[in-house]
Order: sequence, then structure tokens, then C-alpha cells
Amino acid sequence: MTSKEIMNRFQKKYKNVARMLIACPDQPGIVAAISRFLYEKGANILQSDQFSQDPEGGMFFMRIEFYLQDLDNKLDQLRDAFSLVGEKFLMNWRITSASKPKKMVIFVSKEDHCLNEILWQWKAGDLNTDISMVISNHEDLRATVEQMGIPYHYIPVTKDTKEQAEAEQRRLMEGNVDFIVLARYMQILSPYFVEHYPNRVINIHHSFLPAFVGGKPYDRAYERGVKIIGATAHYVTDELDAGPIIEQDVTRVSHRDTVDELKREGRHIERIVLARGVKWHLEDRILVHKNKTVVFV
Amino acid sequence: MTSKEIMNRFQKKYKNVARMLIACPDQPGIVAAISRFLYEKGANILQSDQFSQDPEGGMFFMRIEFYLQDLDNKLDQLRDAFSLVGEKFLMNWRITSASKPKKMVIFVSKEDHCLNEILWQWKAGDLNTDISMVISNHEDLRATVEQMGIPYHYIPVTKDTKEQAEAEQRRLMEGNVDFIVLARYMQILSPYFVEHYPNRVINIHHSFLPAFVGGKPYDRAYERGVKIIGATAHYVTDELDAGPIIEQDVTRVSHRDTVDELKREGRHIERIVLARGVKWHLEDRILVHKNKTVVFV
Amino acid sequence: MTSKEIMNRFQKKYKNVARMLIACPDQPGIVAAISRFLYEKGANILQSDQFSQDPEGGMFFMRIEFYLQDLDNKLDQLRDAFSLVGEKFLMNWRITSASKPKKMVIFVSKEDHCLNEILWQWKAGDLNTDISMVISNHEDLRATVEQMGIPYHYIPVTKDTKEQAEAEQRRLMEGNVDFIVLARYMQILSPYFVEHYPNRVINIHHSFLPAFVGGKPYDRAYERGVKIIGATAHYVTDELDAGPIIEQDVTRVSHRDTVDELKREGRHIERIVLARGVKWHLEDRILVHKNKTVVFV
Amino acid sequence: MTSKEIMNRFQKKYKNVARMLIACPDQPGIVAAISRFLYEKGANILQSDQFSQDPEGGMFFMRIEFYLQDLDNKLDQLRDAFSLVGEKFLMNWRITSASKPKKMVIFVSKEDHCLNEILWQWKAGDLNTDISMVISNHEDLRATVEQMGIPYHYIPVTKDTKEQAEAEQRRLMEGNVDFIVLARYMQILSPYFVEHYPNRVINIHHSFLPAFVGGKPYDRAYERGVKIIGATAHYVTDELDAGPIIEQDVTRVSHRDTVDELKREGRHIERIVLARGVKWHLEDRILVHKNKTVVFV
Repeated sequence: MTSKEIMNRFQKKYKNVARMLIACPDQPGIVAAISRFLYEKGANILQSDQFSQDPEGGMFFMRIEFYLQDLDNKLDQLRDAFSLVGEKFLMNWRITSASKPKKMVIFVSKEDHCLNEILWQWKAGDLNTDISMVISNHEDLRATVEQMGIPYHYIPVTKDTKEQAEAEQRRLMEGNVDFIVLARYMQILSPYFVEHYPNRVINIHHSFLPAFVGGKPYDRAYERGVKIIGATAHYVTDELDAGPIIEQDVTRVSHRDTVDELKREGRHIERIVLARGVKWHLEDRILVHKNKTVVFV
Repeated sequence: MTSKEIMNRFQKKYKNVARMLIACPDQPGIVAAISRFLYEKGANILQSDQFSQDPEGGMFFMRIEFYLQDLDNKLDQLRDAFSLVGEKFLMNWRITSASKPKKMVIFVSKEDHCLNEILWQWKAGDLNTDISMVISNHEDLRATVEQMGIPYHYIPVTKDTKEQAEAEQRRLMEGNVDFIVLARYMQILSPYFVEHYPNRVINIHHSFLPAFVGGKPYDRAYERGVKIIGATAHYVTDELDAGPIIEQDVTRVSHRDTVDELKREGRHIERIVLARGVKWHLEDRILVHKNKTVVFV
Repeated sequence: MTSKEIMNRFQKKYKNVARMLIACPDQPGIVAAISRFLYEKGANILQSDQFSQDPEGGMFFMRIEFYLQDLDNKLDQLRDAFSLVGEKFLMNWRITSASKPKKMVIFVSKEDHCLNEILWQWKAGDLNTDISMVISNHEDLRATVEQMGIPYHYIPVTKDTKEQAEAEQRRLMEGNVDFIVLARYMQILSPYFVEHYPNRVINIHHSFLPAFVGGKPYDRAYERGVKIIGATAHYVTDELDAGPIIEQDVTRVSHRDTVDELKREGRHIERIVLARGVKWHLEDRILVHKNKTVVFV
Repeated sequence: MTSKEIMNRFQKKYKNVARMLIACPDQPGIVAAISRFLYEKGANILQSDQFSQDPEGGMFFMRIEFYLQDLDNKLDQLRDAFSLVGEKFLMNWRITSASKPKKMVIFVSKEDHCLNEILWQWKAGDLNTDISMVISNHEDLRATVEQMGIPYHYIPVTKDTKEQAEAEQRRLMEGNVDFIVLARYMQILSPYFVEHYPNRVINIHHSFLPAFVGGKPYDRAYERGVKIIGATAHYVTDELDAGPIIEQDVTRVSHRDTVDELKREGRHIERIVLARGVKWHLEDRILVHKNKTVVFV
């Protein structure tokens, strides 16, 4: 599909569909208040998921998909009206239009498997996103990206130039980014950079976290003689490989597998896990609370 | 744990917790009506799962766990009051006390692995059930069952005596059964028997349905040379191995596995899949609609 | 990687490495005869897998990877010499050079996921193959294929023109094919065509065979309400979807998944399963006996 | 089955079957030497698995199952004869009779799931072992064990009495143990104890190692918010949870799962993984080299 066809697909699929995400301290009456609000506004609930961490004194999380005639014209007013409910229950909430694509920026280095997977799923019409650009510290993947009509920005990074490289990255993305995907970007982002995009930078780590935090996880997995390898999609925080885990998956290996074969098998897991995380982020399925995720799938 | 300890465990764990299950034609306002009802009755929603089959004109399914002070004394009155909501929306609904154990009858023949798994999970305090008896067409497993203090009834079945055997089974169970588990019971129940317990007889079929319906699935799996075998827990209907599927799982096999090894590996899958189905049934997680299940896990 | 780089990669990786595949009636002394033969010829066994179907009177299967200095010049003579051993034990055997790429022809229709996976794994240097052409009954995927420098042949097929279309296909492939991959080719090949390529046509069927043989497996899986879907790579025989199974894999689904979502999830399984089957075929890991496979992995 | 029936089952199944395990530096001619040796002794190879770590200068590992008429009377003489081959190739080797049950001692504390699984698989006739005793630092599981006719020894352990407790354990096992299974034994064995049973103590760790080494892995998995939990069977060495990994497996969890539910789900993985490790050990499928295992399955 072309980018226009993809956009049309989701415009049609999600016409008048909105999503509401809520996190707040638990107490009686929350669901009643929300659902009465939606009913009175004429909305029809299509899908609702809810999770209370602990009956007594824990947190309440909810995701609702609803249908509302003429949504686009009513969205602002709906948000205004809901803010009263939000305040009453001390909610952290947002309401989004399901048809509106989120702006994604992809960071890559030299390896192409994660990038290719996302591009392929996007072209297949599975991801409702507008890929505003790809940023790389290498030139290797320019052709792959540009032939799809996506801008490619080469910003080399060295220890000395990291600060200005990040400044340049932020400048390029300004106004063009809802979230960032590190598709095997082999640079560590500075805390200063990360704090600009809280819970909006998704990384794929090529191990089953918290095993093998840091570099060369496949070499270390081989060394340790594990029988299963994995990959982890997580939001990036200040602490390396320690952010909220979105998704993990694994595959079986054996003594026959060399480090190269672990890497090859691992690539299949990495791309699937990252693509799943990206899809869930795009569909507003993820809530973050205290370094953990609630994922409504 | 003793049966008394198990009962106490769930009395405590689920004190004042009820579950509501609903299936009805979808339309706006259902969630609002239900949640307002619960709020007005003083109930606090602990957990809510909802699924609408199709935005336009499909079915609506919901499972709610809620907390209500002094539940036991209010349950009947709650049901009465809810029946008005139920009528308005043409609901098929039920409200159950989560702490009240369901009465289970287990049917077995000679193989013990599924029976043992259920007994073990029950003793471990994982299944909120009252196992009222085990019925078998063989004497083999009497000791296993009786040493746990559970009554064991031997009712042999031949082609000629099937009708009276089933009559005897029904007589024994009368008043003592909420649902039946066929834990590798190697007899086919008559339609007449089955219709007494609609969506209340759980069978484990030792294949990945709809592959290998009927007898000797492992022999046929070996013959076909499949690379994965599986098991299926389903509700029993008139049509052999064609009832609503509750759960399935699989395991990898290879050319090295003989029929005996498929059977051995298969036993591990069978018992896990059956136990999962039983647990979900006990926790009121399963709704049946048109020969398919909605399972809220 | 370019095609040339891929070829060089395997030339280097597998320099002087050969593979021997053997199937014969079991009897004492086979391994001794083979390994003495190889030892006397100066070969060093790198990897050896063996499987005897049944101690008494069954079949014997073996796969050996061995290193032999100056292999290319000695291969013919090695085969000649081994034919005596082969005759003595009534072996069905072959010896191949591991570095020599097999010629693959890919058949596709409109769906691109299986084709893309194979092309991507090939470009990543994971598949030692020479893709001599892609044949399609549609024009849709021409650009994808040609931009990789692979010839694309459009041969439309209707009920009336099938015979001549197949004749044309065979003519195009003559001398350019070691095996054929049906990467979601939505036409049934005639028995006449199939018999030209015994155990050399790999198909991906989009179900967990033998469940859902034939058309529209995802629609039927949805209808049946299965909790797991799968895909099967198999060699094509005269009987539809009944050839020797090479590989299968599955993924979990739920009542929430529509037919479209089963198809989307299924695509991930299909491409991984097909690519695995293709890789094993390329690495001479598969032996076929009586409609079943022995796969040495 | 009774213990006598189990023993008879394996006496019959493995009559005249032996297993040979070999590890040595790789070089040409090893397979030829071994297979010629067996052929000349009149043995028929039933199953052979081989693995060379690295074509140039690595290690060679092999497992052979062979049939030899009148094995029991010839075994000693066979070993004597093979020692020449072993010396020539600097082999670490052993030849065992497949029908002879290994003597297993099980260590437990209070949790019964791993113990029960092993007992159940043993009673089902799946494990060729002679369970000589169960040793525990608690009295809880005495009845479970004794009702199967297995001796149960209660040896309490405190920080102060550990040395003498271990001395007592070793005294009890003397002459009655081929290997030890720690079936959730919640004590750390001293290096002095461990060195008496090199690669002969199998532990089940309730996490996916190397994640969550040490205590309370489920609490820490919950805290970290992982999406998959696992278990690891490994040989015990001096370093805590760092010995050679035999087997691992995992299961998916979600934000809904409390620590208790992780523990409950984890128990299913633990018992399956441990039982698999025990079975492979019993079947001489495991070779240990430099803190890693080669597992021929």
C-alpha cells in the first residue's frame, strides 16, 4: 500500500472511534462515572478493559474504545467535559482519535532487520502511523528508507559530538514526532534527551531482560550456555535497559548454536517483539505506572 | 491442604466478592446501565472485561468481579433487582458468589494423569471446587481417589448397559453436581445425557482439534508425521469432538518420537490444558455463544 | 549483501565441506562402513546425525557433514567410490558440496509476506541459494523482485490455460531449478507438473495440518473457534495438502481476533515456517520416507 | 506401576542396550575408530548423535546407543577393550547399560510440586530410576513419600548444624546414590558437599537464569514487570545458580498476575523443566564441558 492508502484504510476502519486511557487511585464509582459520562455524550463503548491492581488502596487502570458520531468535531469539547470527571477521581487520562496516525521517528544504525519489519508491517497496512523520518548514525540504510519515500537523516555520533548530535536530532524532530523507535540504534541516549520524550522512546534490547543488561548479550548468552534466548521491547529511561518492559519473547536454542546462530535466530525475535510493542503503542494499549506497564491486548 | 483448609482459603480470598456474566445483543448504554446499577447498590468493581463482537449489530459479552459488603445476605435481592436491567437489554446473565465452590464430578477410565493433575491443583489450593465424587467405568483409580476422601463410584459400561449406566450416573450426581469433567473418560456420552448438562461437561481431547477428531489421535498424528501435537479442552455437545473449544495447547515433536512417546508428551499437554479449562470454568471466565467460547483471562 | 557477496560468504564458510545423506534398511555395520570409508578417503566428520526407525527391521537414516581437502576436485571420484558402499547396503544416498548454492524458483501470486521473508533472509546472507527467477500469475510483485535483480515472469493461469501455463513454467525453469518454493502461490499444480519435481516443491499451507485442508483455513479456524492457529511447510504431492510435513508452528489467538486478525497473525507464522523449511532444504537436512520427513536440525 | 513393574518395564525395553558417551579433542578418525570398534564387537548402533564444537581445534562430543547380544556378560570386557581407543584419542568416556536404573536421592523442603511430578512420572513408568530415599529438612512431605514405599529421612538444618547435617546426609546416601535431585530444597549446599557429586546434583531454580540469581526470584520478577517467567534446571557447582544449565522453559505472564500467581504458574514450569532434566540425566543424554552442557535429545 502507499502511504495515502494506509491512511485511508485507518480513516475508514476507525471513523468516529476514540480511545480513552485512565490511571488513577482506585475507589468505588469510577467505572460508573466514566460509563455514564460516555452514555450521556451519546458514545457507544466498543471495547473496555480494566484492571485494579489491588482491591484495597491500589491503582485503577482502564482503556475504552468508543464510537461517537461526528467525533472529530466533538473531540475537544469531550475532553473539556471529561476533565471534571478526571479531577474528581485524580485521574491521569487521555482521549485520542483512533484514526489519527501517530508520528513515528525511527533511529537505526547498520542492522536492518527491525527497521525492515516495521516498514513491511506499515506497508502491509497493519500500523496506523506516519513515519516522519529515519535518523541514523550511519549511511548504510539510506536507500532502503528513501525508496519508500521516507526522509533519511544521517547524523554521525562520536563521544565528543554526542551533545550536538542529539541537539540536531531534536531540532529535526520538532513538531514531527509523537514517539521514537530505536530499531537497533547502537548509541546510548543522554538522560537530557530521554527526559524530553517520557515513555515515548521504545527500544529493543536483544536479550531477555533483566538477563544480559548492556552490551553483547548474545556473546554472553553463548558463554553462559542458556537454552533459550529472548528479546525485550521497553520504554527508555535514564537507567540502561531498566525501563518499563512492554513485551518479551523467546526462542529455543541448543549447544549446536554458535554466537552467529544466536544472533541470526535472535533477529527474528527482536523484530517481532519490537513490532508488537510499536503496534500496541500506536493503538494506545500501554499504560505506564512506576516503571511497569499495563498492556491491554 | 485439607478440603476444609481449601474451602477456608477461598472463603477468605473471595469474601464479599461476586461475579457477573452477561451476554446480550450489543447496543449503546449497556456498560453505563450495569455500572450505574452496581454503583447504586454500593458495589465496587474490582475487575471488568468486555468484548463486543462487532460494532454494528453483534453481541456484547461482559464479566465483572465486584466487591459488595455483606454479599451473602444481599445476593438474592441483587439478582432480583438486576433482572430488570437484564430484561431491558435482553441479557443472558448470571451473578455468582466467588467464594462459593462449584460442585465438580470427575469421570475417569484407566489413565490417571488428568485426574491426578486436577486433584493435585485442588490440594495445592488453586481450584475453588468441591469434588463431590469420581465416577469410573473401571476400578483402577479407586485407591487414588478414596485416599483423598473423595467418593468413588464404579459403574461399568457396555454397549448394552449404557442407557442404564447413564441413568445410574445421573441419579448419583443429582443435587451434587454443578459441572462434569471428563478426565480421559473413554466412553461417548449419549445426547440424552449431554443435554442435561448444557455447557457443563468439559472434555479433554488428545489432539489439536479439529485435527484428528475421534479415536486414536496420537496414532494418526504419528502416521501423518506432524511436527507438533496438541490437546483441546472443550464443552461436550451432541456432535463428537465438535463442541465449543475452551483451551488448546501444543508441544513440539520430531521424527524420533514413536507413538508411545507422543502419548507420553501428550499427557503433559492434556493435563495442563484440562486443568486450565477447569480453573476458568470455576472462576466463571467462560461464556458460550454459538458453539464458540469467550474466555476472559 | 549483493548476490555475489552472499555467494562468497558461503564459498568461504563451507569451503571443502560436503554433506552425505543416506536412507536404507537398517542392519549392523552401516555406520562402521560409512565412517571407515570417509576416514580412508581423508575426510573429517564435522557433524553426524543418525536415526533408526526401529531397532528390528526398520529404516536407517543418516546425515553427515564432513571436511575434505580439495573437495571440488575429488567429489566425483568420491561418489564413484561410495557407490559400492551404497549398493551393498541398498542405500538411497547423495553427496553434495555444501558451498554450492541450490537453484531456487519462487512461485507467488499477490501476497508478498512469504516472498519478502525469503528475499530478506537471502539478502541477510542466511540462505545459500541462487534465486534463478520468480514466477507469478499476477503482475503485482514485479517491482519488489526486479529491484533485487531477480528475473520475474508473469504467467497468467486460468482453468483453460493451466496446461500450457505449466508447460511454459517448466520450459522457463529448465536447467535453472533445483527446487521450487510456493510462497503463497494460489494455484493448484497438476499431478503431471508435480511428478517432475518429486520432493522438490515446498508449499506453505496457512493452517496447522491436517486441520483445515484446502481453501480459506483462517475463515474456518475463526468459525470453529480455535485458540491457536498455525502454518505448515510441506512437500507437494498429488494429494492436496497431504504431502510430507517439513515444519509447523503456531501462535495463540483469542475470541477477540477477527478473521482479518487471524490472517495478519498467521502471516507471521507462515513466513517463519516457510523460511525454516527452505533453509533446511538448502542445508540438506531433510530426508523423505513414505510421506513423512526426517529432519536433522 | 509398582517399583518392580517399572524395573521390569525397562529391563525389557532396554534389554541388551548400552550407551556410550564420549568427549575429547576433535581430530579426524574418531567416528571411524568408534564405529569400527562397535562393529567388530558385534554391536549394532541404534542411535548416534555427535557434535563438534568447532571444525578446527575444538571438542568432539558423541552419544551412541547400541545393541549387543548378551550385553550384561560382555560389558566389563567391552569397557576394557574400549579403553585403548579412549586413550588413543584422549577421551573422557563411559559405557552404561541402558536397562540399569540409576540410584536417585531427592532432597525437598516443604513444597511438593517438583517431588510429586518426579514421583508421578516414575510411577507412570517414564523414568528408569531407583529412588533410594528422600531427604528433607522438614517433616511435611513424609506421608507423600512413605506411602510410595520410599524411605524418608528428616534431617533438620540450621546455620550451626549444617556441617553435621551434610555429614549425616552423605552417610545415609553412601552406596545408595548415583545422583541427587534438589526438588525445591531451600538450603544452599556447602562446596565441600557439592564436590563429592560433580555434575551429579541437579537443581531447579525458579527463574530464567541468569536473570534473578539467588532468592525470591518471583518477587523480583514481579517488581521488574517481566512479561515472561521461567525456570532452569542446572547442575550444582560452588557458585550459586551458576552451574551448567541443562534445560529452561518459560511461560507468559501479564500485569494482572500477582506474585502469588507468578508462583502458581511458575510451579508448572519448574516441575516440567526439572523432570525433563532428570529424564535426560537418567538416559545419559547430557555431557558437561566447561560449565556448559551438550544435551543430545
